[in-house]
Amino acid sequence: MSELKGACVFGQSGGPTAVINASAAGVIQEAMNQSCITNVYGAAHGIKGVLDENFYDMSKEDPHELNLLKTTPSSALGSVRYKLKSPEEDETDYKRLIEVFKKHNIRYFFYNGGNDSMDTCNKVSKYLQKAGYECRVMGIPKTIDNDLWGTDHCPGYGSAAKYIATSVMEVYHDARVYDKGMITILEIMGRNAGWLTASSALASHAGAGPDLIYLPEIDFDLDRFLDEASSIYRKNGNVIVAVSEGIKDKNGKYISEYGSDLAQSKDAFGHAQLGGLAATLASIAKQKTGAKVRGIEFSLLQRCAAHLASLTDVNEAYWAGQMAVKYAVEGKTDYMVAFERAEGPEYKCNIKLINLTDVANAEKKIPREWINKEGNGLTGDFIKYALPLIQGESKPPMENGLPRFSRLKKVLVDQ
Amino acid sequence: MSELKGACVFGQSGGPTAVINASAAGVIQEAMNQSCITNVYGAAHGIKGVLDENFYDMSKEDPHELNLLKTTPSSALGSVRYKLKSPEEDETDYKRLIEVFKKHNIRYFFYNGGNDSMDTCNKVSKYLQKAGYECRVMGIPKTIDNDLWGTDHCPGYGSAAKYIATSVMEVYHDARVYDKGMITILEIMGRNAGWLTASSALASHAGAGPDLIYLPEIDFDLDRFLDEASSIYRKNGNVIVAVSEGIKDKNGKYISEYGSDLAQSKDAFGHAQLGGLAATLASIAKQKTGAKVRGIEFSLLQRCAAHLASLTDVNEAYWAGQMAVKYAVEGKTDYMVAFERAEGPEYKCNIKLINLTDVANAEKKIPREWINKEGNGLTGDFIKYALPLIQGESKPPMENGLPRFSRLKKVLVDQ
Repeated sequence: MSELKGACVFGQSGGPTAVINASAAGVIQEAMNQSCITNVYGAAHGIKGVLDENFYDMSKEDPHELNLLKTTPSSALGSVRYKLKSPEEDETDYKRLIEVFKKHNIRYFFYNGGNDSMDTCNKVSKYLQKAGYECRVMGIPKTIDNDLWGTDHCPGYGSAAKYIATSVMEVYHDARVYDKGMITILEIMGRNAGWLTASSALASHAGAGPDLIYLPEIDFDLDRFLDEASSIYRKNGNVIVAVSEGIKDKNGKYISEYGSDLAQSKDAFGHAQLGGLAATLASIAKQKTGAKVRGIEFSLLQRCAAHLASLTDVNEAYWAGQMAVKYAVEGKTDYMVAFERAEGPEYKCNIKLINLTDVANAEKKIPREWINKEGNGLTGDFIKYALPLIQGESKPPMENGLPRFSRLKKVLVDQ
Repeated sequence: MSELKGACVFGQSGGPTAVINASAAGVIQEAMNQSCITNVYGAAHGIKGVLDENFYDMSKEDPHELNLLKTTPSSALGSVRYKLKSPEEDETDYKRLIEVFKKHNIRYFFYNGGNDSMDTCNKVSKYLQKAGYECRVMGIPKTIDNDLWGTDHCPGYGSAAKYIATSVMEVYHDARVYDKGMITILEIMGRNAGWLTASSALASHAGAGPDLIYLPEIDFDLDRFLDEASSIYRKNGNVIVAVSEGIKDKNGKYISEYGSDLAQSKDAFGHAQLGGLAATLASIAKQKTGAKVRGIEFSLLQRCAAHLASLTDVNEAYWAGQMAVKYAVEGKTDYMVAFERAEGPEYKCNIKLINLTDVANAEKKIPREWINKEGNGLTGDFIKYALPLIQGESKPPMENGLPRFSRLKKVLVDQ
């Protein structure tokens, strides 16, 4: 395969994670080592930065600050949620993209994100091929939701799982200090796939986790939940429940939407303690059981807690970015970099390439057999799967008792 | 002062912290070294355990597990919120207490807690004196709220402050990744004193913190808040606001109570996104500014995050427990151990003793001159005060990628 000389563009897309910047560091540092890559550009806010021709010149950044990206959470270049129409429907964006690529002789395009982002990456790749513009396009997986098809797991998941399991263990200790018992309801992210909520089972595995775990993979039955929680409450005095934000009833209605009904209802809750799912379930459980109930929403913290990132995750995220560049330089294109777990007792992942077409918009959920019969907990197979992903502690360098995160200059390339 | 031979009882009281168990380790390990202390007992659920004669025999614990208490969050012996009546009002509890103390020849009583707990400790101390029962009574300060009178700061605060400042920095990075701006409202603990919410200013000091900070020390004006937030939003696109759960309007009404009014109101919020203060302010700000608004409640996590504790805090908490025992053995009684900051450029604290009478029920708030003129931020004096308290990282030993917390046997003493 002949050498392809030109500039590269890297973009971050979708919701940020604790390690998406580690993939950025992998791409940028590897691209700078490649003689055939003439310029290394970062797109401001992903595909939008490409269409607006807003590129940061990475060669203008302090190498130390680029290195700090490995331990800096969120999306340093800015992210975006922008769905490209299909070219058949509207070719405008694509024409503009080729115009920009030609102007800057962009021959390498690396896009880091989840399902929708891989869809974008796939459309760009296919259009460039059809248009006969030579450009190597590589997707790099990223999502705390861990729901990308075709890869053993996604960079970002291990760190979120480590944060969730650790925080659940700490709440477990806090929630049982009084002699009067309490029901604690933890709301964890995950709209359609329960991987994040399932990671709370790692805390149970360590002896300090939830008694009940409810995932969007299983229809949620409010009465069954109340029975299961009350019976544990009567038996142990304390109950910890982990729920996915995305749990729905058998009619497909989000349980979180029960909240607004309650808000309007006049039945005596005292204060209508509504809000997210946790607050809603807490209100209901309080009324039905009479127990002290507390709802806790982990919220954004679970996707940006770089201070507690998994070293395995950080290293794999960096590696994925680095390998995307190496494969592209070798001539590969139209693929997403993915992880394949090696056989054997020791955890080891190899990198494989999967077609962008196959991964775009597909969604991976938790296999039913990894969820217990009752549908309120995880099996040992899940623990075996998830435990290796949270190993090792990534430590951001500290300055004055607080993490020192990367500070980029973000020097724009002339238009 | 003649040597006093007998058993000691240690109790934990009030809300748990990341380091109250470090004080426990200090008391227990030091007491075990003292020949005049015949038995080291832990009271189950503080004063309640004393009255119920529920004592754990600490000599039955594995020394390694006792050592792990230094890095284990929450109250390992169990906590309690029980207010002793004054003896004049009702002597029952006191008579029972003396009965139990005599039965087990308890001559040392160490009580670890906040304002109310020091009130309990003070009442016990005074009653035993009046009854002529010789017993050395020492209070050990503890509260994330940092509102105890007479001490430079309270064990528990530094770790909570470190967690809050770090988490705010991470949310700061997460909250500005999209090109469309957002108003983020962070609800932080602190009913009457703003010390915890103020610690978010340490993140601003590090360049990634709130634009606006509202404390319970200052009357909260909803319209002014909306003006201040909107003008920053229009200017920067992104706004981060930190609010104490305890902010009140000039009529003394908690802003969090505005929520239930809104819940009942029929005006079109779409979903009534209510709940805690953060959700309430988010709903209002969303409606008034039209901006994207997110409310985040740090909740319990801020008081039990041992994985991110301040090493300074952990060491001081241990030291406070240890010194309480040493002073008691030397003959001191009826005091609380307190910190006094030494003069000079280097941070250094000495231990002093203050009368339980003086500290009981007194409350320390943030001095007005440490809050900016506008009442929406902190001054450099606060930073100078708080920064030394979050220095150093306390690391719980890890096992399988998760913290290994102490597991006590809790062997009960025969009644």
